Amino acid sequence: MIPIVSIVGKSDSGKTTLIEKLLPELTRRGLRIATVKHDTHGFEVDHEGKDSWRHKRAGAHTVVISSPQKVALIRDVERDLTLDEIRGKLIQDVDLIVSEGYKKDVQPKIEIFRKEVHEDLLCTPEDQLVAIVSNRPFDIGVPCFDLEDMKGLGDFIEKTFLKQEKKRRVSLRVNGKAVSLTTFVSDFVVSTISGMVSVLKGCGNPRQIEIHIDEEGK
Amino acid sequence: MIPIVSIVGKSDSGKTTLIEKLLPELTRRGLRIATVKHDTHGFEVDHEGKDSWRHKRAGAHTVVISSPQKVALIRDVERDLTLDEIRGKLIQDVDLIVSEGYKKDVQPKIEIFRKEVHEDLLCTPEDQLVAIVSNRPFDIGVPCFDLEDMKGLGDFIEKTFLKQEKKRRVSLRVNGKAVSLTTFVSDFVVSTISGMVSVLKGCGNPRQIEIHIDEEGK
Repeated sequence: MIPIVSIVGKSDSGKTTLIEKLLPELTRRGLRIATVKHDTHGFEVDHEGKDSWRHKRAGAHTVVISSPQKVALIRDVERDLTLDEIRGKLIQDVDLIVSEGYKKDVQPKIEIFRKEVHEDLLCTPEDQLVAIVSNRPFDIGVPCFDLEDMKGLGDFIEKTFLKQEKKRRVSLRVNGKAVSLTTFVSDFVVSTISGMVSVLKGCGNPRQIEIHIDEEGK
Repeated sequence: MIPIVSIVGKSDSGKTTLIEKLLPELTRRGLRIATVKHDTHGFEVDHEGKDSWRHKRAGAHTVVISSPQKVALIRDVERDLTLDEIRGKLIQDVDLIVSEGYKKDVQPKIEIFRKEVHEDLLCTPEDQLVAIVSNRPFDIGVPCFDLEDMKGLGDFIEKTFLKQEKKRRVSLRVNGKAVSLTTFVSDFVVSTISGMVSVLKGCGNPRQIEIHIDEEGK
């Protein structure tokens, strides 16, 4: 499962600027990053008159525009998705998801705080706060990095969210929810499924296996 | 697996217009549709200065913008994705994928042909052509629908691509490729995995199961 960390902070604390400084530090380490930004006001990413815009207007639930360099997608949702749902439905091929905001989500958080702008933190350690980035020190039991210390913050993120990723990655979702597996159960699941799949035609060396079962159908 | 059908035709044959007329007919039947459009020229769906644009410029591989009504995503790719890859990486929660173009892809195709504009068809039945939409008749062994007969075309699409969808849907991908399963193997896979999962804590009634195994890791 791709790890998620949220950059949170009060209004005007500098969340986007921090992400702009942090991303080059992380990509320099060879990491691929997805960012997630919440937009309560709605947004327009497509242009009137374009074919994809015409598809959407004609009633498409999802519109994808694909080119050799990048792919864009716009889809309907019925409510705000959680970060876990965004990860499950949309994000692949990255090492880490960094969200801007999402203070109320359950994912671990790094708060940015600038003493010129605010007097108190937004989060407490009970909010899954794992670090602070600030131009003043805090002593609340989580590491505090200087606003400019992207190397220190990058080391912390790598150590906290990426180093414990195993060589072998197994994820299991049942009825839409992620199920955490012990090493024993994970080994059992992998051995059973790999063995079962390996006898199928053309599946002799299964390195990556994806199975989706939907008993309800549409 | 979500079925895919491509609307193909020569330049200026009216592919986008056909999709605009077809989508309301399909959504009226309660179907959720995703469309896919190829863009060789590159495209801009994001706006300079927006936070998501700043994330992308700072090196994000993928950028997601989420609101209560819709979600947008822009991601890097290294080459043109096939429709099967787009389905696997990006599309969920729809009944059918309709692409505009993708004549060279392996998916089934419906060609639009207007006699005022062209003299010959783009496809042959060997191109996985399954139907023609045209203002002149063709006798090449596939059904031919009038340009305005969206009810007939909708019936054909529903019968061809959606009716044989089973109540229970199972998909298996090994090393990135879809593996087709006979009914026996499909039943065997579902019984084994459902049984295995059902003894895990909190998984007593597994209706939807997703498993991802990656033996190589990053």
